[in-house]
Amino acid sequence: MKQVPLRHFLNTQDWSRAELDAVLSLAAACKQQPLGLRKLEGKSVALVFFNPSMRTRTSFEIGTFQLGGHAVILQPGKDAWPIEFDLGTVMDGESEEHIAEVARVLSRYVDLIGVRAFPKFVDWSVDRQDRVLASFAAYSSVPVINMETITHPCQELAHILALQEHFGTNDLRGKKYVLTWTYHPKPLNTAVANSALTIATRMGMDVTLLCPTPEYVLDERYMQWAAQNVADNGGSLHVSHDIESAYRGADVVYAKSWGALPYFGNWAPEKPIRDQYKHFIVDEAKMALTNDGVFSHCLPLRRNVKATDAVMDSPRCIAIDEAENRLHVQKAVMASLIGQRR
Amino acid sequence: MKQVPLRHFLNTQDWSRAELDAVLSLAAACKQQPLGLRKLEGKSVALVFFNPSMRTRTSFEIGTFQLGGHAVILQPGKDAWPIEFDLGTVMDGESEEHIAEVARVLSRYVDLIGVRAFPKFVDWSVDRQDRVLASFAAYSSVPVINMETITHPCQELAHILALQEHFGTNDLRGKKYVLTWTYHPKPLNTAVANSALTIATRMGMDVTLLCPTPEYVLDERYMQWAAQNVADNGGSLHVSHDIESAYRGADVVYAKSWGALPYFGNWAPEKPIRDQYKHFIVDEAKMALTNDGVFSHCLPLRRNVKATDAVMDSPRCIAIDEAENRLHVQKAVMASLIGQRR
Amino acid sequence: MKQVPLRHFLNTQDWSRAELDAVLSLAAACKQQPLGLRKLEGKSVALVFFNPSMRTRTSFEIGTFQLGGHAVILQPGKDAWPIEFDLGTVMDGESEEHIAEVARVLSRYVDLIGVRAFPKFVDWSVDRQDRVLASFAAYSSVPVINMETITHPCQELAHILALQEHFGTNDLRGKKYVLTWTYHPKPLNTAVANSALTIATRMGMDVTLLCPTPEYVLDERYMQWAAQNVADNGGSLHVSHDIESAYRGADVVYAKSWGALPYFGNWAPEKPIRDQYKHFIVDEAKMALTNDGVFSHCLPLRRNVKATDAVMDSPRCIAIDEAENRLHVQKAVMASLIGQRR
Repeated sequence: MKQVPLRHFLNTQDWSRAELDAVLSLAAACKQQPLGLRKLEGKSVALVFFNPSMRTRTSFEIGTFQLGGHAVILQPGKDAWPIEFDLGTVMDGESEEHIAEVARVLSRYVDLIGVRAFPKFVDWSVDRQDRVLASFAAYSSVPVINMETITHPCQELAHILALQEHFGTNDLRGKKYVLTWTYHPKPLNTAVANSALTIATRMGMDVTLLCPTPEYVLDERYMQWAAQNVADNGGSLHVSHDIESAYRGADVVYAKSWGALPYFGNWAPEKPIRDQYKHFIVDEAKMALTNDGVFSHCLPLRRNVKATDAVMDSPRCIAIDEAENRLHVQKAVMASLIGQRR
Repeated sequence: MKQVPLRHFLNTQDWSRAELDAVLSLAAACKQQPLGLRKLEGKSVALVFFNPSMRTRTSFEIGTFQLGGHAVILQPGKDAWPIEFDLGTVMDGESEEHIAEVARVLSRYVDLIGVRAFPKFVDWSVDRQDRVLASFAAYSSVPVINMETITHPCQELAHILALQEHFGTNDLRGKKYVLTWTYHPKPLNTAVANSALTIATRMGMDVTLLCPTPEYVLDERYMQWAAQNVADNGGSLHVSHDIESAYRGADVVYAKSWGALPYFGNWAPEKPIRDQYKHFIVDEAKMALTNDGVFSHCLPLRRNVKATDAVMDSPRCIAIDEAENRLHVQKAVMASLIGQRR
Repeated sequence: MKQVPLRHFLNTQDWSRAELDAVLSLAAACKQQPLGLRKLEGKSVALVFFNPSMRTRTSFEIGTFQLGGHAVILQPGKDAWPIEFDLGTVMDGESEEHIAEVARVLSRYVDLIGVRAFPKFVDWSVDRQDRVLASFAAYSSVPVINMETITHPCQELAHILALQEHFGTNDLRGKKYVLTWTYHPKPLNTAVANSALTIATRMGMDVTLLCPTPEYVLDERYMQWAAQNVADNGGSLHVSHDIESAYRGADVVYAKSWGALPYFGNWAPEKPIRDQYKHFIVDEAKMALTNDGVFSHCLPLRRNVKATDAVMDSPRCIAIDEAENRLHVQKAVMASLIGQRR
């Protein structure tokens, strides 16, 4: 096996716009003919979950089957061994195995590896290194797919495909896109928020990041990706703390809850702050301010906390279409990556 | 997708006798040719387990494979998100996701959904609503199959197929059928007892429900189903607390343990009662009273608690045949339901 | 189904040398053409795990798929019922089901059963009976495969295939083989050590068992198997407590940690003993004493505790090849056993 650099799917930002557009159109084709593509015939995929999953696991497992392959579900520390990620460690703690062996061995068994690894929520400076995903990519000899770590690129593609379907065009430029923070009892992962900001600007939309206070602005890496995308693709990026002006005239409202990074790992003082902003819930009154806007969310969603029943059950909600699209875009991603081995 | 009412498999009582007979004969054909039916070619099934399973999971997973499809196993709250079932709830508790989204999204990924959800054993007036199963059926846009909730219709069909095989006829009218309560250290689910009573009367047998005291009689819904079945199909239904007369002349002895409903959720006072009836164990002495009767049980079975080793290992025990038939009848049920989508 | 004795794969010692050689050459063929053998087309396999697994589960699941079949993963006590193994027990404890029913029912659903069941580490006189595996073999009506209990025969074959590939010959006679104990914070299973000793002598190599003290010598059953193998196949067997003389001139160094049997179930007094022997770690200085020897380990391996990073990452380490070979040898074992049913 000659040494060629491996192509992974870790972040959409690593892929050219032309490559992303190709994946999106392949996904649309897969949606029309679910069994029309057999690029994984006789091949295997390892889906490694360090955190629970319903949509991701089901859509990847079924997508692999529809492509002719077989997916193995692994849950390290649950029905597999706990894994060490640091280099040079004397492994006399809990971990029974090093990522070097795990990734190298899995690479001998399978043709693709999917990884879900949420932050540990103790130290953002550590979690922002996305080390679990990076380690799999470094040691694997087959392509690695991000199934959600500190970003969620598969969700990005599913979201964009749903918007393209809704608006009946692949060109989303000029749409007013609002990414709104919502309340949730717990300080959640910023992954989907980082991803929404990244892909919405990538598609050239006019993007507003609506959040309660400056403390809820996202990590500078993703703010910079978004700024770069605006520079490269047109559109705009604004941060707002004013609900009414943010919603007014919006074509797209995308909701997500996340924890304020300044309190990362020390969440107690953040709770009284977030508790003041339960009114960020997406409801009919806010949606009435939009340009007959469409609403979506990555799911899972706590009804009547993040969005009301009325919004979730309205015909303007495309969250279920977006969730379905996970299946189609992931098949397209797997089909685009398969066949590489170093 | 035009709006047609969906056909589910929630209870045998919802299906006509002709429909049940057709499923049973298709199951018998599947048993002769395990790979002869490919009705799920390229299709997917979600098996949602809120409780543990060995036979059900294995037989559904393999049955799906033999039909050409793929089954995804989901365990909400374990490797998937905890689910909310109430309508209009402000979801600020443990549940991360509402059944409306779970069922709608799964319906986009799969062609059939199987659900196992045992009672919570706190309040029978709540558990008897069978809400988890009903919610999946209400929100899903593909057929839903009961994998055991407060009834166990797949077990019913497997049981009847085993009796038809044993007696060499599909006509079980005139057989004396005894459903006997047995001791178990814990107050178990009444599902299989409800189901046995329902299907035995449906098949027109002369049915005796043998239990220690009137407190162990089953929920009125199932007693009424049984009475209705006797009215419609002939046969008879009697409740007895006398072991000897119940066993005498029996053609079929079916054993199950269950908790007395008057103590549901407040089990402490029931324990001293059930502890008095350990002699309800199925043994050779009791079987000697029968008409060379056949014995069966749904499994899992605690040997020498519910039935003796001698009974379990005797040629008159068809529990293993009944368990095998789970595979065949479930394939027939899936093949009968597949293809519907609203 | 006529009563014929079933062929299982419980230990390599039960198989003739010619049979093992045939499996090894079939495995080598499978490695060349992963999809060339379809012996499990439409067939099913149950993989029963009483303990966690990564390589074993992945390699068996994928191997079954590559052979055309489907593997069901069961974890009794976790997502399946706890199982009773004793005969004649009044099952009023934790176990909900007896192995007699589990094995008989599984045998109706599947064509092969794999079992992983580690010792309970309480009483070696009990664990050494290997009762879980023996019970499955006794009650199953399809072949049973040992996925690691108190021996690990699949690992043996993968190890030998890797050595045959490394040395470019199937004839390993005359090679100096060192099985070295290494430190691990916990007293581990002796399975892989028992297996390495068994198969290395079976292949006629000159085998040295290197361990800290006589207390770390393996169970007499495996010492006797090894002695018998030397008598039958030539080669030699020596026990050594001297690191330098053991490593000098070695062609193969195989490392494993295990608990000293005299302290089995009463490990506290063993800890201060094992803590004195951390220097048994496999490092470059020790490997420099060998005859340009090859290093391997069954994995999982704690880096810098059992072996250094330098040894693990050196071209002389074939642990990843050995792990890959699990897939190929297990496919060969399944293909050799399939089709039997009593």
